[in-house]
Amino acid sequence: MSEEKKQKLSTDSYKGVRDFYPADMAIQNYIFGVIKKVVESYGYLEYSASILESADLYKAKTGEEIVNEQTYTFTDRGGREVTLRPEMTPTVARMVAKNQKALLFPLRWYSIPNLFRYEQPQRGRLREHWQLNADIFGEKSLHAEVEIISLASSIMRAFGVKDNQFEIRINSRKIINYIFGELFAFPEETRSELAKLIDKKEKMGAAVFKAALKTAAGEKTDKLLTLLNSKNFEEFAKSLGETAGEKAGMDEIKTVIASLEKLGITNVVFDQTLMRGFDYYTGVVFEIFDQNPDNRRSLFGGGRYDDLLEIFGKEKVPAVGFGMGDVTIRDVLETYSLLPSPTSKIKLALCTIDENGIGYAEEVAQELRAQDISVIVNYSDKKVGDQIKSVVRQSIPYVICIGSDEIKSGKLKLKELASGKETELESSNVAMHIKNQK
Amino acid sequence: MSEEKKQKLSTDSYKGVRDFYPADMAIQNYIFGVIKKVVESYGYLEYSASILESADLYKAKTGEEIVNEQTYTFTDRGGREVTLRPEMTPTVARMVAKNQKALLFPLRWYSIPNLFRYEQPQRGRLREHWQLNADIFGEKSLHAEVEIISLASSIMRAFGVKDNQFEIRINSRKIINYIFGELFAFPEETRSELAKLIDKKEKMGAAVFKAALKTAAGEKTDKLLTLLNSKNFEEFAKSLGETAGEKAGMDEIKTVIASLEKLGITNVVFDQTLMRGFDYYTGVVFEIFDQNPDNRRSLFGGGRYDDLLEIFGKEKVPAVGFGMGDVTIRDVLETYSLLPSPTSKIKLALCTIDENGIGYAEEVAQELRAQDISVIVNYSDKKVGDQIKSVVRQSIPYVICIGSDEIKSGKLKLKELASGKETELESSNVAMHIKNQK
Repeated sequence: MSEEKKQKLSTDSYKGVRDFYPADMAIQNYIFGVIKKVVESYGYLEYSASILESADLYKAKTGEEIVNEQTYTFTDRGGREVTLRPEMTPTVARMVAKNQKALLFPLRWYSIPNLFRYEQPQRGRLREHWQLNADIFGEKSLHAEVEIISLASSIMRAFGVKDNQFEIRINSRKIINYIFGELFAFPEETRSELAKLIDKKEKMGAAVFKAALKTAAGEKTDKLLTLLNSKNFEEFAKSLGETAGEKAGMDEIKTVIASLEKLGITNVVFDQTLMRGFDYYTGVVFEIFDQNPDNRRSLFGGGRYDDLLEIFGKEKVPAVGFGMGDVTIRDVLETYSLLPSPTSKIKLALCTIDENGIGYAEEVAQELRAQDISVIVNYSDKKVGDQIKSVVRQSIPYVICIGSDEIKSGKLKLKELASGKETELESSNVAMHIKNQK
Repeated sequence: MSEEKKQKLSTDSYKGVRDFYPADMAIQNYIFGVIKKVVESYGYLEYSASILESADLYKAKTGEEIVNEQTYTFTDRGGREVTLRPEMTPTVARMVAKNQKALLFPLRWYSIPNLFRYEQPQRGRLREHWQLNADIFGEKSLHAEVEIISLASSIMRAFGVKDNQFEIRINSRKIINYIFGELFAFPEETRSELAKLIDKKEKMGAAVFKAALKTAAGEKTDKLLTLLNSKNFEEFAKSLGETAGEKAGMDEIKTVIASLEKLGITNVVFDQTLMRGFDYYTGVVFEIFDQNPDNRRSLFGGGRYDDLLEIFGKEKVPAVGFGMGDVTIRDVLETYSLLPSPTSKIKLALCTIDENGIGYAEEVAQELRAQDISVIVNYSDKKVGDQIKSVVRQSIPYVICIGSDEIKSGKLKLKELASGKETELESSNVAMHIKNQK
């Protein structure tokens, strides 16, 4: 490489993160706008925090692997170990714990933070992504689960995804704990190994899965397989037995499914193989699953985690919540062609013939902006035809050309570019006219 | 410290950053909402980027001190030096440079990024803050300066700040370059030393300033002081002399001030002592200055920087822009009592008498949410009186209590808490009724 080339800075973004040019930002804003509208209709209030957190926050409950190898952690000059947050739940738990006495429970809170993970970037897995986090704190009844799952369903519907295009799979950590613990008494290491394995069940062939299961579960494999292969809630309940079902909280699943059905949410299925990654869940867990035959996969999920505040030495607060990533949801909306076609936020362009025209246009623009019309003024000496071409390329719907005639008469010709229709107006009537056309 | 206490995690945020509880977030959202509305009325499109950037980006044009001591910079496991962006301008310049060929100039772009600096936190100077960045790229005429300064003024006005409460100070890097270069021929090191010194002029006593100036400027001090102490544009122009004024671009200042005046922006003054921190400015610079007699200070500013894209080995693109920090503007709005009083985003709470009431309330809530009414349901077994107290504490304006009577009759009593007024309605009419009350 020549010395000259070396001196030029790269224009690439850092590896695995995204630049949002206005067209991408408009899509991001559309997605977040839909999410916010739905979440706020459920009475959830927005909170936020810094991406910088003490590394200790992630050492308490999350798996060791996550903290050491998959996070951005560095030591600041004050000797503090700092982590770029890989998830929001520890942060929101910290905030709730800090003000526990003053807060009015139940809290319904949401945030759309950016999160960081250090790994090889791949499709759908970037080093920085955004994620809706919606949580209800301080509600121990199953109504919290019903509300959170209903909220997740409402968001999917608000994007235009049909109920038959996604499935809500639910399970309970209590069932898993009962099977791994009371029923089979697997040692702790085997339990987490099994959870990881069962999580991948759908991606593996039946024979490969069985072989892998045998290595971990030994002689208990067949009985475990019977449970894992049960086709539905009733069959599973029967295999488990009534007394066991009571201990495992099978009724909770039944109640949640029935309550959702009453609210018109019927695309819900029990899935005893649903594990969820992190270990802080304590009750019902759920996942939204894409039913697209070409790309069946988990989109996002959540569940109940009643013990998280304990790590701060505070009183327990029951909590149910979920997270939903921007990359995944954008991908789904693209797959189902549900992203709206791009429109310009700029309503009007003022083309100008000369310097006097520009001066007058600047005044007209100020007047219109005060009336909430988004206006740009052309300052270049390009020909009017070229100015209009540029307006069309930006999909701006209206144009007014300003020269000496307009300055003299004070009358402006407002042209709607789609129809070609021209309307002559006093400048004071332009804003009203544009607003009435919508 | 006992072993037990050690094990408890701290609930504090990382040093020098903020947690945004819903009440703080509402203020932040109000501030950003006002800014976005004004900026978009000027036709500016939102963009964004990751906070992670290659450290090289800040070594090119920014002062060495900034990169080494005041930024968060660390080495990732791939050996890349990564910086948490301390400012947005290098990022947006990189984005423009990357797509220079495809972009349709002029660009009007804005973003409200979070920025990081490593320094001792103090009032108004945190380790993380947010900053509006608005820039126009590809416009070489002074209309760009006029538009950007007018935009800054419109934002202040939109917040309700009166024109006599702030002052727009303008200067030009060309004037400074002329004085330091052609007129006095100061060596490079002296120039940056003088710029820093002059920046602090208002905070120093006249005698102390003169003494400090003498150390740097030597025998040229008196002539320099005459220029710096000129009371207004005319006096300064006279001291400089007509020929010199032409070389220094004094006409630019005159044109910008006159154009702004034509647009009704009259709180503009020329200030030859205005330096601005970073060294990439090439023409007009400006600052919005708080006129509050108890706290006169620079609030934010910007200017023209035509050469920045050169660092990417790309064609120059003329640019004018400014940045405006959230901490500063919030402080101003608090000082002038301009923050709106907090209101609840939640419109309606459904109080419930028993489990049947909750089930019915869940259905009513779903129906109302689909009509964009923000509703919460009480799932607790608290007495209705206590439920209503909690609704009042949350400033939620409407409440409906649901028990067996309501389930039987299908009629709901909507109570407006401020007036105590009750209206009996079919559930299907509640949304309409609430919307009409606004």
